[in-house]
Amino acid sequence: MLVEGTHFFPNANPQRLGHKALAVNLSDLAACGARPLAFTLALSLPEVSEHWLSDFSTGLFNLADAHHCTLIGGDTTRGPLNLCITVLGEVEVVNGKAQPLLRSGAQVGDDIYVSGHLGDARWALMVLQGQLERPASLVQPHLGPPSQHSPFFAAAQMRLEQPTPRVALGLALRGIAHAAIDLSDGLVGDLHHLLHASSTQLKTPEPLGASILLEAALGLMAAAHALPQDLVLSCVLSGGDDYELLFTAPPSARAAVQAAAHGSLTPVTRIGTVEAIPGVRLLDAQGHELGGTDKFRSFDHFSNQLA
Amino acid sequence: MLVEGTHFFPNANPQRLGHKALAVNLSDLAACGARPLAFTLALSLPEVSEHWLSDFSTGLFNLADAHHCTLIGGDTTRGPLNLCITVLGEVEVVNGKAQPLLRSGAQVGDDIYVSGHLGDARWALMVLQGQLERPASLVQPHLGPPSQHSPFFAAAQMRLEQPTPRVALGLALRGIAHAAIDLSDGLVGDLHHLLHASSTQLKTPEPLGASILLEAALGLMAAAHALPQDLVLSCVLSGGDDYELLFTAPPSARAAVQAAAHGSLTPVTRIGTVEAIPGVRLLDAQGHELGGTDKFRSFDHFSNQLA
Repeated sequence: MLVEGTHFFPNANPQRLGHKALAVNLSDLAACGARPLAFTLALSLPEVSEHWLSDFSTGLFNLADAHHCTLIGGDTTRGPLNLCITVLGEVEVVNGKAQPLLRSGAQVGDDIYVSGHLGDARWALMVLQGQLERPASLVQPHLGPPSQHSPFFAAAQMRLEQPTPRVALGLALRGIAHAAIDLSDGLVGDLHHLLHASSTQLKTPEPLGASILLEAALGLMAAAHALPQDLVLSCVLSGGDDYELLFTAPPSARAAVQAAAHGSLTPVTRIGTVEAIPGVRLLDAQGHELGGTDKFRSFDHFSNQLA
Repeated sequence: MLVEGTHFFPNANPQRLGHKALAVNLSDLAACGARPLAFTLALSLPEVSEHWLSDFSTGLFNLADAHHCTLIGGDTTRGPLNLCITVLGEVEVVNGKAQPLLRSGAQVGDDIYVSGHLGDARWALMVLQGQLERPASLVQPHLGPPSQHSPFFAAAQMRLEQPTPRVALGLALRGIAHAAIDLSDGLVGDLHHLLHASSTQLKTPEPLGASILLEAALGLMAAAHALPQDLVLSCVLSGGDDYELLFTAPPSARAAVQAAAHGSLTPVTRIGTVEAIPGVRLLDAQGHELGGTDKFRSFDHFSNQLA
């Protein structure tokens, strides 16, 4: 359920909004290794604008068609702008038993991976909310002179407003990944969700923990080298709204993970390891611990830190 | 999708609201002859009130449990109060082919039936909106002296705020009814929807029509004899929010329809006939035509008429 003022700006581009409303749902299916089948859409509108509805539908159905996902029902009514999509997908069935990818399957020693880019969506949001200055002269290092329209910012804004659900990667990871979750609340927060669910499943005496390689994490943000490292770290670790997949797999599956990434045309980065020691730690290139990540667990902490 | 201010009053009783949010969805399944399986709930709340959520959950889960319908997912977020439920059900499958009850199966000569009561919900709404005086001394004819709290009004208010989805009747009508729809927009309006869909299915040169027996229609409203006939007629024909089933079946199935009604403990009234002549007509007890029903087709006409 996406609500105006909570999840998007009142003047949000309707075509990108149509895309995002479905994309965030397809991202949930991707994290389950599920194939999209169909969706319902309930729409509450303050007024009927043909123009808005036409653009919204374009964004929505372009993405739906790309995933062969059919609109099968829903509702339209009058009220504050609210978009509610329910998506249905199909997981693999082996010997009559459904085999979804779950967040609860991580094991001690698993590698931790992230797809695509993290943190750019949060940076774009902060700029659009006026918390940070809008960059006017950031340049892509190899593409020539400064531009008034930062291509980094434009790309980050697209990641915020038109995220790419990693459906093909989710399907390719079936039988390879031990656990997966989609990143909507931020890397550290969602990693805690995955570790907590896996600990419960394993009935470990203490919750599982993880180490994250600082350098790998910093490299996940496309605009990283153009911004201060503290900001990059915050955006990557607690950004949210990324809709990338966070997943774990045993070290023996590294080649299979790379093949899945290659086959699904999705960049994948190995960023750390699941461990028996509770908590999520940052490591430098030499493997030395740089400290905990508790302050990055949620959006609220992030805001406080900047305030 | 139910929106505060559009579908319910800001101070609506949360327990009844929880019931109604699921009931209106189960009513759609009932009209398909489908067995409820599961539902998702997305909830946008302006603030978190433990008391409100507890009462809402009680109403919701009491009804869900009664229908063995399981909550399987959803969302909670902040925003104007909005309740969005998607329900999943199962229709009969014969020789590998799904056999839903559809609104498009009506045939010329079919009897037209309605379950339960019509119009009381609209009357209650008009009273609660201040369009009509709140009845203080209406009595049930056989139950003694006037009461300050009209039992008719209390019952009508319950029909508005806590409607009964006719799931058992819908299941019992499988293989008996030709067509069915649930009454959310009003009898005449929804009958037109059913006739239109059936005409399209039959590819008739002109749309199908129907005759409705005035006396049978008037008898559908529980509070009918306590109110002016014009008001009763408007409430019954264009009331809306009834969540009863409107269905058709061939005259040869009258005994089977009665058995289905009996078996599902649901009152059912035969109110008219599907005809080859377009339009919906009212007939008196002698079968004489009393006029068309165009002014009863929608809620808006109804409002205009009273204004």
